[in-house]
Amino acid sequence: MSTFNESNEQISKATEDYVLQQTMLRIKDPKVSLDFYQNVLGMKLLGQYDFPAMEFTLYFLGYEAEAPEADGPEKTQWVFRRPGLIELTHNWGTENDESFAGYHDGNSDPRGFGHIGISVPDVYAASERFEKYGVEFVKKPDDGSMKGLAFIKDPDGYWIEIFSAKGITDIIHSQS
Amino acid sequence: MSTFNESNEQISKATEDYVLQQTMLRIKDPKVSLDFYQNVLGMKLLGQYDFPAMEFTLYFLGYEAEAPEADGPEKTQWVFRRPGLIELTHNWGTENDESFAGYHDGNSDPRGFGHIGISVPDVYAASERFEKYGVEFVKKPDDGSMKGLAFIKDPDGYWIEIFSAKGITDIIHSQS
Repeated sequence: MSTFNESNEQISKATEDYVLQQTMLRIKDPKVSLDFYQNVLGMKLLGQYDFPAMEFTLYFLGYEAEAPEADGPEKTQWVFRRPGLIELTHNWGTENDESFAGYHDGNSDPRGFGHIGISVPDVYAASERFEKYGVEFVKKPDDGSMKGLAFIKDPDGYWIEIFSAKGITDIIHSQS
Repeated sequence: MSTFNESNEQISKATEDYVLQQTMLRIKDPKVSLDFYQNVLGMKLLGQYDFPAMEFTLYFLGYEAEAPEADGPEKTQWVFRRPGLIELTHNWGTENDESFAGYHDGNSDPRGFGHIGISVPDVYAASERFEKYGVEFVKKPDDGSMKGLAFIKDPDGYWIEIFSAKGITDIIHSQS
């Protein structure tokens, strides 16, 4: 890296109002993914943006309690200032392409991205409900040594950690 | 998927208080990554959790204005309820392992995860500052057809989109 240095005050000032707004995952079929993120996970669809020239669509979802009703530039600006949304990118045609091999979840070689994670009040209640929806589990809450912590898969196979703040705190502070 | 169905009200109730809390990325060297996320991007390190038995450490960072000062279970519970944090996972030893090939950014085959994205007030000012730090760009703000939008790389090569809400809104609403 360079030898450029700033004081903590300079860093705070230069990065003021920065918002970690999105995590982007590519998806094969928006119908299936929107059903999962909206109905199984309970997120709201906050924005859908089509790019016809480049043949893709972006879907932004999150747990916002309130969102502007009317679509348009004002709502779009609002969406792009919200923290911690998921951005699903659909490259048109993959949903009907039988030769499409699917996307890589990052947890087998070559590894990189691991998962997104959702903090829930009760992991066991959440997991019971996910089972009713037929959601695939990587780890059920009582599998392995870390009890009360689950991993599920989204429709493209991306891992989603399901934990409670209390449960994961107990795990962490019993480790050390 | 299953035939399990709930009304919108049932879904809202079942997923109440869910928080999209984390995006997990594996990193090779925490010294280098913490320098980047704290000093270049201006995030705060909110929690560091060591798992000695499994030889890994988790680092949680985000743009929280205020955080509890004292480490301990109360702060940990607070961290795991914060929306939209980045979780960096360091498997011990990679930083000194010359045979370690590095992590996969998801944007070449096999593709999947795309990027995280930061909403900033001024993409050009942000990019000028990133250049002073020697940050690697995938796309500078004026490259390509989408002006005022940049992509940089974190130390492991993960892509980070840098945009302004106003700028990306102009791009989106000039597309359609």
